[in-house]
Amino acid sequence: MSFAQSTEPLNLMPLPAKVERGDGGLKIDAGFTLAFAGYREARLDRAGQRFLRQLRRQTGIVLLPASKNAGAATLTVTTDHESKPVQELGEEESYTLDVTPVGAKLHAANPLGTLHGLQTFLQLVAITPDGFAAPAVHTEDQPRFSWRGLMIDVSRHFIPLEVLKRNLDGMEAVKMNVFHWHLSENQGFRAESRKFPRLHEQGSDGLYYTQEEIRDLIEYARDRGIRVVPEFDMPGHSTAWFVGYPELASGSGPYAIERKWGVFDPAMDPTDEKTYKFLNDFIGEMARLFPDQFFHIGGDEVNGKEWDANPKIRAFKKSRKIKDNVELQAYFSGRVQELVTRHKKTPIGWDEILVPGVPKTIVIQSWRGTEALAAAAKMGNRGILSNGYYLDLGWSAARHYATDPLGGPTASLTAEQKQLILGGESCIWSEYVNAETIDSRIWPRNSAIAERLWSPANTTDVSSMYVRMDTEATRLEWLGLMHRSFQRTMLQRIAGASFPGEFDALRELAQALEHQKDYTREESAATQPTSFTPLNRLVDSVQSESDVSRRFSLLVEQYLSANCKDPALEAPIRAQLVKWSTIDAQLRPLAQRSHLVREASSASSALSESARNALDALDALQRGAPVSDEEEKKQIVALQTFEKQANKTQLTIPELPAFQKLIEAASAGGACIASE
Amino acid sequence: MSFAQSTEPLNLMPLPAKVERGDGGLKIDAGFTLAFAGYREARLDRAGQRFLRQLRRQTGIVLLPASKNAGAATLTVTTDHESKPVQELGEEESYTLDVTPVGAKLHAANPLGTLHGLQTFLQLVAITPDGFAAPAVHTEDQPRFSWRGLMIDVSRHFIPLEVLKRNLDGMEAVKMNVFHWHLSENQGFRAESRKFPRLHEQGSDGLYYTQEEIRDLIEYARDRGIRVVPEFDMPGHSTAWFVGYPELASGSGPYAIERKWGVFDPAMDPTDEKTYKFLNDFIGEMARLFPDQFFHIGGDEVNGKEWDANPKIRAFKKSRKIKDNVELQAYFSGRVQELVTRHKKTPIGWDEILVPGVPKTIVIQSWRGTEALAAAAKMGNRGILSNGYYLDLGWSAARHYATDPLGGPTASLTAEQKQLILGGESCIWSEYVNAETIDSRIWPRNSAIAERLWSPANTTDVSSMYVRMDTEATRLEWLGLMHRSFQRTMLQRIAGASFPGEFDALRELAQALEHQKDYTREESAATQPTSFTPLNRLVDSVQSESDVSRRFSLLVEQYLSANCKDPALEAPIRAQLVKWSTIDAQLRPLAQRSHLVREASSASSALSESARNALDALDALQRGAPVSDEEEKKQIVALQTFEKQANKTQLTIPELPAFQKLIEAASAGGACIASE
Repeated sequence: MSFAQSTEPLNLMPLPAKVERGDGGLKIDAGFTLAFAGYREARLDRAGQRFLRQLRRQTGIVLLPASKNAGAATLTVTTDHESKPVQELGEEESYTLDVTPVGAKLHAANPLGTLHGLQTFLQLVAITPDGFAAPAVHTEDQPRFSWRGLMIDVSRHFIPLEVLKRNLDGMEAVKMNVFHWHLSENQGFRAESRKFPRLHEQGSDGLYYTQEEIRDLIEYARDRGIRVVPEFDMPGHSTAWFVGYPELASGSGPYAIERKWGVFDPAMDPTDEKTYKFLNDFIGEMARLFPDQFFHIGGDEVNGKEWDANPKIRAFKKSRKIKDNVELQAYFSGRVQELVTRHKKTPIGWDEILVPGVPKTIVIQSWRGTEALAAAAKMGNRGILSNGYYLDLGWSAARHYATDPLGGPTASLTAEQKQLILGGESCIWSEYVNAETIDSRIWPRNSAIAERLWSPANTTDVSSMYVRMDTEATRLEWLGLMHRSFQRTMLQRIAGASFPGEFDALRELAQALEHQKDYTREESAATQPTSFTPLNRLVDSVQSESDVSRRFSLLVEQYLSANCKDPALEAPIRAQLVKWSTIDAQLRPLAQRSHLVREASSASSALSESARNALDALDALQRGAPVSDEEEKKQIVALQTFEKQANKTQLTIPELPAFQKLIEAASAGGACIASE
Repeated sequence: MSFAQSTEPLNLMPLPAKVERGDGGLKIDAGFTLAFAGYREARLDRAGQRFLRQLRRQTGIVLLPASKNAGAATLTVTTDHESKPVQELGEEESYTLDVTPVGAKLHAANPLGTLHGLQTFLQLVAITPDGFAAPAVHTEDQPRFSWRGLMIDVSRHFIPLEVLKRNLDGMEAVKMNVFHWHLSENQGFRAESRKFPRLHEQGSDGLYYTQEEIRDLIEYARDRGIRVVPEFDMPGHSTAWFVGYPELASGSGPYAIERKWGVFDPAMDPTDEKTYKFLNDFIGEMARLFPDQFFHIGGDEVNGKEWDANPKIRAFKKSRKIKDNVELQAYFSGRVQELVTRHKKTPIGWDEILVPGVPKTIVIQSWRGTEALAAAAKMGNRGILSNGYYLDLGWSAARHYATDPLGGPTASLTAEQKQLILGGESCIWSEYVNAETIDSRIWPRNSAIAERLWSPANTTDVSSMYVRMDTEATRLEWLGLMHRSFQRTMLQRIAGASFPGEFDALRELAQALEHQKDYTREESAATQPTSFTPLNRLVDSVQSESDVSRRFSLLVEQYLSANCKDPALEAPIRAQLVKWSTIDAQLRPLAQRSHLVREASSASSALSESARNALDALDALQRGAPVSDEEEKKQIVALQTFEKQANKTQLTIPELPAFQKLIEAASAGGACIASE
């Protein structure tokens, strides 16, 4: 097999610990066979079926079911022994994979390594001038961190089981091994409780997972080498519990499911023994339902207002000499940790549960940062990092990629303390995310985080990461993930269009924009959003990180580095700017018939006008006639105005820095003009 | 509510028997509620849930579950009484729907009418300048024909249950009411038989539906007002039966699952009583599994070779004075019909089972045409039309639309005989169709057939049909049908591309082309295709009827009608031609790295070159300088060469007639030049 560009990086994500390339490659055609040797179990057979289905999807080739004949198979998979009956933190996950022109061999100690190796093989398969093939490689691989998680908030917006499943498929593809299921919140209690049925009956609008569905998902995850850690957030973030069980709360009720976003007052009553009786029974039920060793008790963001307002609680604090609400929460937390431990589980919680004297077994999940993790490690507590991995903030993959659990203050821990840093978890909080958009808010950026947590620490080449992430984004589509495909149907809806060509300009617009970063969306909204607010606007249809903008900015950088002289770089920049500059006019007919397109017109005019300014700068650069300082200043101020204009509908124009660079370059003091 | 263009046709497909428009419309927002009155059943509740889910998908609006309070609901649905426990041919299906600015009322005699009315309401909902809304209408509706079917061949390529389900969703959307399940063929036996397990075990490569899955699909269909008619094709098309039960065959075996396409020799032994014993037990089992009144026994395309070769069969014919194989098949057919009738089912079969003396109860499905149907009606037999509705032939929607079960010879039947024409069925035979591509080969063209079978006979405006079909094609995407979305991932695979912008030229190419029509694909293939041949080539990724080509051809017609003088028409024609003319060059880099792009290069160069010729003609028209007759002739011959070039990879260039018109117009004798 010939590989056209064998010097290109291999399409592997996360990058394995060690890869060596060989000569040529292994042809993948209808004769391809798979066989298992060594230790066998039904999970491996299912993995084989899934592998073949995925290979068929990637190539379109008809493949036969896995064969019994290990010797003659194209890919022989040897597994030494079984893995733990309930997957454990820190279990062996290594594998070796050898691909040669005549066959491939995958070897792993246990099924976890086998699952990872099968994914590596699938990633290697590519189209070539001679057909589909996998390049010859020798790979030895194991993860850097043992806890590589994704947390999904299914409470603020309910996420149906099948959407979770395809995201677990995505996790398997990038070798993540913990699904953290954020199951309760002010806005929804999503797990069926048979002991306390009013939890899900009255706290979920009917949108919850039955215990059968939960067991099904846990099995599904186990099949993919993924542990499932449930979270029941307490004592705050718990309004939905109180709709059916107001007696748990510190206020007087009645309570209704919260529809707004933010931090709210309701909190469990930490002073009433009834609370612990209830939680003991509840945690017991859930501890039996969820086999994983870890049990997440939340613990974040208690504002203490209900505690302060309740005379009984004030009296309790006084009698026990509890000086403030932090101490009161520590008391609650300690009691709940005891209950979790009584049910043979290890508690994990957010930063807030780390207080002096907390048991060493407890794991801290840090939304605050590596400083908090370092502090925990110094106290002897294990920790995982989530700060820097919040996918809903809309950061670039590069920014997530630069976040390392052992970067910052954790870098100076002792070797022994570093062992306590277990890894990290990306998080998707779902205020502005629903079943239709969630894939696009998780993928493909999550694969950059997955690589950070799996690959060696020195795997830090951002441009290589992006090349491989683009390829992985394509592969993830074969798993049914909708991070790319969601956009077309959403834009069709926004445009009221009946055929794709009708909304080309709207697509150009959407692909150029991103949603606002961090927590600014709420601030800039005209009316306060709630869980009833439709997520059907342009802002919901754009990517968190625009591929088009990323490529455009790269082009501009290359153009400027080449002294603004390379016509091969100038041409695509100009073509793109011309396209953007006409979008606004092109959208007018659609805006006449759709309120959602009309709403987007402030963003479209901002993009078109700013692109026209950039185009003027490009003209000036081409003519070699500099723009005056005054004009330059005016233009740069204008860019800020355009950004504000886009912000009105919670959008941002990620091209503006590149536009500004062109404008600056075209100014009298600009690098390119000066060099004429 | 304001409707921007209230003179436009309503987005309804099939068009109702009667629609009157009122003023304004009904706003659809988060306050929308649905309630049921009158007769209630669980199926209606599920229909309500499905309706709300679909409305949510179409609009992105969060909607509450159906309410109990009929009086206050936005849409009140009243059903008079139940329908038959097993849906029957000819059951009432009518409904009336009234939408006003303050609310909507749907009324139907039974749940079948209710289901249809809910779909009509969903089709009315559109985006407007003021939000989502349904225009005010008064509708009275019922079908023209009582049998409106879709046949899917799941035997030549297995089609998974979930793919069938989304196609049933599509059928419901366009009010089709019969799913004809073609379950057995030379290439596969797809239904589990507990009596004769070797049928599915040895005849299916493990790709079959369990009885539980079959029951599930039947329930699913019933929920959508759809009957399920199973077909077990006999005595021919039956090789897959003989793998496990060679004793049924007329030859000596052994038999293997057929991998090639075509008509094959194996046929059941009509002379052996063992055959009828087997079929009696088998039909009994299937008659219990499938509740529908009708049972399809196939009966098509027996070549008789195995019969002629078998001395025992020759002797049987002689002793019984059976003069030929047609008579022998009639004998077999009669015996099988008796068995079907014994199991309380009504037999239906292809044309071949219509022989003198056939019982009047038997229904004929005609692949041959309305002539055969007229003959059947004259004999007193009921019939349904499939000739003209074969979706796999790749015809245009317009061509299918022009086919009427009461057109041609059936038009001159007596009124009483016409009653025997029950309707029609579109058919998708799956030689070149698999789970990935089937939606695109059925939809949206099938909605034109659905309209033909539902709407009044005088609903024949093709341009109105296409406008509404385009809109319906968009709505069908919300049901999960992949008739549009399949293309992007297929092209990505073909290109080996990692981001969408990378294969724009390939998409332009794919969207301009169609697969070859009728049964020419096999003839033009370099090697004989089998069921192992991957369906991953450009030909598999194109539409059966190119939307882009349809719009382009329309533009050219308008341009020519306007004496080639309208620059507003000339500009988009030119832009499109320029795009096509450069595709070939743009594809070269991709062809370097992908064998599947390289294979497509004969088609891409044919498209680009022919577009350049059309562009020359356009230039000549613009200049008013005629092209010589000789040159014209040369160019038209060239077009034929280009078509042949595309045919090499089973593709066709549907723009060529429009290109030819431009070339002819630009000639010395051409209309536009002459009029200068």
